Amino acid sequence: MNRQERYEYGMKVLEQVDGEAGQRVVDSLADVSPELGHQVVAWAFGDMYARPELPPRDRQLITLGVLTALGGCEIELEVHINAALNVGLAPSEISEALLHSAVYCGMPRAINATLVAKKVFGGRGLLPITNAG
Amino acid sequence: MNRQERYEYGMKVLEQVDGEAGQRVVDSLADVSPELGHQVVAWAFGDMYARPELPPRDRQLITLGVLTALGGCEIELEVHINAALNVGLAPSEISEALLHSAVYCGMPRAINATLVAKKVFGGRGLLPITNAG
Amino acid sequence: MNRQERYEYGMKVLEQVDGEAGQRVVDSLADVSPELGHQVVAWAFGDMYARPELPPRDRQLITLGVLTALGGCEIELEVHINAALNVGLAPSEISEALLHSAVYCGMPRAINATLVAKKVFGGRGLLPITNAG
Amino acid sequence: MNRQERYEYGMKVLEQVDGEAGQRVVDSLADVSPELGHQVVAWAFGDMYARPELPPRDRQLITLGVLTALGGCEIELEVHINAALNVGLAPSEISEALLHSAVYCGMPRAINATLVAKKVFGGRGLLPITNAG
Amino acid sequence: MNRQERYEYGMKVLEQVDGEAGQRVVDSLADVSPELGHQVVAWAFGDMYARPELPPRDRQLITLGVLTALGGCEIELEVHINAALNVGLAPSEISEALLHSAVYCGMPRAINATLVAKKVFGGRGLLPITNAG
Amino acid sequence: MNRQERYEYGMKVLEQVDGEAGQRVVDSLADVSPELGHQVVAWAFGDMYARPELPPRDRQLITLGVLTALGGCEIELEVHINAALNVGLAPSEISEALLHSAVYCGMPRAINATLVAKKVFGGRGLLPITNAG
Repeated sequence: MNRQERYEYGMKVLEQVDGEAGQRVVDSLADVSPELGHQVVAWAFGDMYARPELPPRDRQLITLGVLTALGGCEIELEVHINAALNVGLAPSEISEALLHSAVYCGMPRAINATLVAKKVFGGRGLLPITNAG
Repeated sequence: MNRQERYEYGMKVLEQVDGEAGQRVVDSLADVSPELGHQVVAWAFGDMYARPELPPRDRQLITLGVLTALGGCEIELEVHINAALNVGLAPSEISEALLHSAVYCGMPRAINATLVAKKVFGGRGLLPITNAG
Repeated sequence: MNRQERYEYGMKVLEQVDGEAGQRVVDSLADVSPELGHQVVAWAFGDMYARPELPPRDRQLITLGVLTALGGCEIELEVHINAALNVGLAPSEISEALLHSAVYCGMPRAINATLVAKKVFGGRGLLPITNAG
Repeated sequence: MNRQERYEYGMKVLEQVDGEAGQRVVDSLADVSPELGHQVVAWAFGDMYARPELPPRDRQLITLGVLTALGGCEIELEVHINAALNVGLAPSEISEALLHSAVYCGMPRAINATLVAKKVFGGRGLLPITNAG
Repeated sequence: MNRQERYEYGMKVLEQVDGEAGQRVVDSLADVSPELGHQVVAWAFGDMYARPELPPRDRQLITLGVLTALGGCEIELEVHINAALNVGLAPSEISEALLHSAVYCGMPRAINATLVAKKVFGGRGLLPITNAG
Repeated sequence: MNRQERYEYGMKVLEQVDGEAGQRVVDSLADVSPELGHQVVAWAFGDMYARPELPPRDRQLITLGVLTALGGCEIELEVHINAALNVGLAPSEISEALLHSAVYCGMPRAINATLVAKKVFGGRGLLPITNAG
């Protein structure tokens, strides 16, 4: 695949996973760092995310762990909590994943990520969550 | 103690230390991750914070160090700077604690935490601080 | 459950998941911080890990993401890569999970975690991995 | 130099590099931690930044790398992306520096820093950038 | 004070606090970055640590919190756990401080720091600790 | 370029920059995560590092800033301090870059990175450094 084809392939993967939220982040980079937008699409989604070695649901669990631990990634967590719902994780599973993270990266990071989940769930009419208490 | 008793005991500790600010964070978790709210109260406050091996003032100094170093914990710093005042740290001691952190985690983290302190101190009529310049 | 029962319950969970590697970490804490050892067992495993909302395989994927992102957690990664194998993740899935993390926390963290995986896999006769290239 | 002279010398360096954006951060510290403001000026700029061993352009490249990797430093990135422009880095070089960081600290940190660059570039009429795609 | 006097003053503070462990770190920098060694002594100890706004015991609690949260600071933790003992913190208080940190930065960081404490306490004949379980 | 050609191109870039130290890291990944090794070469070096928008010397300054700030990246710092020397940075400039980082990410991270530089410089007969005190 050439550069343009790699981009188009990555965009198909991104659309399936992140939907509009991911597209908005890429669009926001167009006038300041088009190459970063290209790499997010062509490399992160086209080369890496698309690999069949792990299914999307597993990838989102890992991604939630990484983003929660990093901290300061509210924008990206919003994209990936939407993505987590899109690939089949239930809201209660997502909340549990963030709760689980608290053991390893502490309460503040878990609280911050959970408040992003609250925003995403609320926007999709998924609050209050069920089966997680 | 059973689960409910552990929660109630932790809530008493939380109320003495964090007051309304801590309660608001726990309330905000109720519809998205009630178990995380439970663990903050029953475990973090009831099991850990309440231990007599260190007094509350010492615990807040450690907590300020951890939260400043982590970064991206403005919500939690607001709770714990209020708590630091509640357990007897003077505003000038809190500012000094954050200044001291700069040596070990750098100026940006210390500046960010200090701007949260400014917000908390301002809300409680404690600005300008005295004795710290 | 009382304190001792909570510990014993957590130890059963830990043994199923982490096996000897986890036990060694807890043992190493006995003379310096017995309460930290207690909390790892009774709280992290007994209260948190044992919750049925997510199965162990999912919890290990999240844990691998968190520990890789944190960095400097070679000791804990060794425990949890062993645990990941114990709960059914294939070596190639573990390597892929760490590769996936590179997108979100960068190449160095992913390389460091992968070198821990290499050590664990080697010790269990699982190198070279198959199906991941 | 005495304490006041060290401050005045540091302020001259800060004015050349950071301009108004740096001054605003120092001013915001005056009523909450005047000593932190003093140390930013007298030590960070007067003692450290002013050393001739590396020119300002090199120092800004390093600073962009550190602040991007730390995360949660949007306030400081805004100051230092302005500073980077002031000491001669082109917008396309700054975007490339943040893109380069993605390899080592991951896509989310690079995206966050790039969105701060977008804000700074926009405020100075420098969008869209040229020569970086 | 001139540059040399600031260094000598800082060295007196360092000797009181960190003793030989701190001196060894400064010595190790002499041939690779003498200015970093100078800044550790003259600025970190002479300008910052020596300020009377907080006593040494408080400063060590904050420092333990910061270093535990940062992770990857085993060398510095070894210096500062020694320092914590030197300024009057009991081994059981230090272990409790690290246990307390676990709430905010997670179990792995607390375990890693506690294993450094174990090494320091062992070297000074202070194991097993008493009064902390 | 196809996958193999991208790898070969990246390897040429890596050889020019990192030399043997980089090659050793890639080799160490071969049996545990060949795809991570491929991505380091083909993507990090072939796609990203090779871009002409910034010269190698600038890229190494940024990389030193990122790796110092991340912490726990001794393996990667060893590779990139060698690389920094290979692309024309003097030992005194590298030490100064790490000293500069201390302002933004604190003394411990700067000390740790400087001790890696000491190891690399020593191995290449470049100690004591000159012109940096």
